[in-house]
Amino acid sequence: MYKPQTLKGFRDFLPQTMAIRSRVINILRGVFEKYGFSELQTPTLEYAEVLTGKYGQEAEKLMYLFKDPGEREVGLKYDMTVPLARVMAQYPNLPKPFKRYQIQPAFRAENTQKSRYREFYQCDVDTIGTASLLADAEILAIISDALTALGFTEFKIRVNSRQILFGITKDLSVLQTIDKLDKKSIDEVKQELSQKGLTSDEIQNIFSSLDSAKPDENLQQVIDLAQKMGAKNVQFDPRLVRGLDYYTGAIFETFVTEPKIGSITGGGRYDNLIKSLGGPDLPAVGTTLGLDRICDVIEELNLWPDLSSTSTQVLVTIFSPDLASKSIELSTKLRMAGVGVELYPDDRIKLEKQLKYASQKGIPYVAILGPEEIAKNQVTVKNLSTGEQKTIPNSEDSLSPELFAPSFLLR
Amino acid sequence: MYKPQTLKGFRDFLPQTMAIRSRVINILRGVFEKYGFSELQTPTLEYAEVLTGKYGQEAEKLMYLFKDPGEREVGLKYDMTVPLARVMAQYPNLPKPFKRYQIQPAFRAENTQKSRYREFYQCDVDTIGTASLLADAEILAIISDALTALGFTEFKIRVNSRQILFGITKDLSVLQTIDKLDKKSIDEVKQELSQKGLTSDEIQNIFSSLDSAKPDENLQQVIDLAQKMGAKNVQFDPRLVRGLDYYTGAIFETFVTEPKIGSITGGGRYDNLIKSLGGPDLPAVGTTLGLDRICDVIEELNLWPDLSSTSTQVLVTIFSPDLASKSIELSTKLRMAGVGVELYPDDRIKLEKQLKYASQKGIPYVAILGPEEIAKNQVTVKNLSTGEQKTIPNSEDSLSPELFAPSFLLR
Repeated sequence: MYKPQTLKGFRDFLPQTMAIRSRVINILRGVFEKYGFSELQTPTLEYAEVLTGKYGQEAEKLMYLFKDPGEREVGLKYDMTVPLARVMAQYPNLPKPFKRYQIQPAFRAENTQKSRYREFYQCDVDTIGTASLLADAEILAIISDALTALGFTEFKIRVNSRQILFGITKDLSVLQTIDKLDKKSIDEVKQELSQKGLTSDEIQNIFSSLDSAKPDENLQQVIDLAQKMGAKNVQFDPRLVRGLDYYTGAIFETFVTEPKIGSITGGGRYDNLIKSLGGPDLPAVGTTLGLDRICDVIEELNLWPDLSSTSTQVLVTIFSPDLASKSIELSTKLRMAGVGVELYPDDRIKLEKQLKYASQKGIPYVAILGPEEIAKNQVTVKNLSTGEQKTIPNSEDSLSPELFAPSFLLR
Repeated sequence: MYKPQTLKGFRDFLPQTMAIRSRVINILRGVFEKYGFSELQTPTLEYAEVLTGKYGQEAEKLMYLFKDPGEREVGLKYDMTVPLARVMAQYPNLPKPFKRYQIQPAFRAENTQKSRYREFYQCDVDTIGTASLLADAEILAIISDALTALGFTEFKIRVNSRQILFGITKDLSVLQTIDKLDKKSIDEVKQELSQKGLTSDEIQNIFSSLDSAKPDENLQQVIDLAQKMGAKNVQFDPRLVRGLDYYTGAIFETFVTEPKIGSITGGGRYDNLIKSLGGPDLPAVGTTLGLDRICDVIEELNLWPDLSSTSTQVLVTIFSPDLASKSIELSTKLRMAGVGVELYPDDRIKLEKQLKYASQKGIPYVAILGPEEIAKNQVTVKNLSTGEQKTIPNSEDSLSPELFAPSFLLR
């Protein structure tokens, strides 16, 4: 017998957690589609040659590369961008600009002590095939709309551009140190810069340039267009860098004030990446939304207090085997009326245990159909959280979904 | 440069295909949840020891087993049942009966010439922890409701039971031959039985027993209960066997009359399987719905003629860069009004090309805001399939979602 366990960095999503994740994904899908983005899915496994040689050796150490049963060199998806580049190359007739979103797991053998997962969902939304700043602005509008739709209010979308940063220094390693200002103090960052060989004058210059930096014409246009599209909380932040070296224009990250968990979105314009990943020469802009972090924020801030792991409003209990058919009829009637209803799936279990099951699953109401109720053609409905109960006629008119709304008995 | 291609048996789902798949999954989720089933997801990768030694050597040849970057022996999910058994063992406090559904990819290195996929979605719905026939009946009701909700009318849910079959012969290999009656003629099946060493009298006996078989008490109760729950098209079929040897009670498969593609669901009661797979000793019943086949039927029968790869109702075009902001305003206004709207994401492209883009993506309408329209505070709306166009006031009152319904210009 084996030990029942998951691999480190891999997770089971039990119903409670899945309820949040599914709702997040549904809301995001709705926003993306409202802006005309369509869904793409690509395989979990790719030829190894599609994945390797793209992001450097450090990334490749984290890849799940292996031989399949037919001895082909294959690997698990590492991100959504490399498969996107392959798709753009493989289907040259896709209408362009190609506006796609993709919500699928990616796999990286990260050190799990940094609270990173080895299988995690990526949620990417990108416009491929236009260099227009309208496309950049639209991504910002989507981020704003998506977070608002999820119930976030205290978020800031920080924007900057690679042109502005390269106007201050062309040294990417210096920029990557500045990128740490979120996690480290100014003094620590200055010390790291001096370790990289910069004089204190040079460091001073960089910081005063950062302090006085202003959006250039392009970035200002992106910000203006995004605001015209309804994007909220967009702010210029000259200290925003983004670690990855492939961005070519605007860059953006989103932060929430509470809790402190780093950025929840990250993206920008990457006009050369699709080509360098093996795709055609197409400009592109997009963002990742960090599904795991977003779900963590929703849980931690308790943004969705009403969300239950079940959409069942009422458990129809079974009083005894001979009365089971009455309970079946009631549950079918309720289901037809649009009520989320669960019939207790066993007719030989004590009522008390059935009520306990409903409580455990977070089902708010139970319906009881005993001999007395049946004689009078009634149903007893009990609110499990308040303990209140009342008896109503067992007729289609009385059995509406509103009956099982959270507050009906308290009215 | 690599060749842009997917591995054999692995598929990209481009927007057109994804639109069908997403809608199928949404409808199935809705039905499962209406019966009180909650979603479970388990990792793509498991410890190899969780996967192996469960289904025999033939199955293991098809498994993707390998060493992860940390030298652990791991494997890709082969089905949803083995992980379910692990979950039941790992979380003993899950409320029981545990009613879960799971829709995730599974991986099998099948011979792709049989038009099988190596990565394919499984969609399982099961009740774990009760031997009650109510649970069996509920699975049948769910199959019927799900297929009806998908728009299927010509389906038959065939049911039988292992007790009835074992009353005819205890020889599983004989039963597996009988199972081929769907694909082979009676004579071919009889010949195969005689090759297995049965005399012609024995073969004659088996067939006459099959012809005169009737549901036993348990199976009749399952059928009656299911019909009471609203299940349609449930039929007893004594020749239904189901290949797998782990079923212990009722078994069920669903077939559609057209097209001929074999069963689209398969399941039954399996009271010993969870334990034999390493889980606790819990009776269980459930079914798989074949997502790929279901999508194939929907495409082939053109059940959803109105389904587009985009939910965009109207493309707001951009007449010229200086008029872009007017188009942005219009698209934001339409989006607020609940219209699925796409703003063409580039202001330097000819109108003609923008219209071609809308056609390619299957967007039914385009909105045009040129200098003339802007002067008169109007919008020109064109139906791309009929070519008809009309000019309407650019005011919130006139811009309702109904305006972009498929038939408004024809009224």
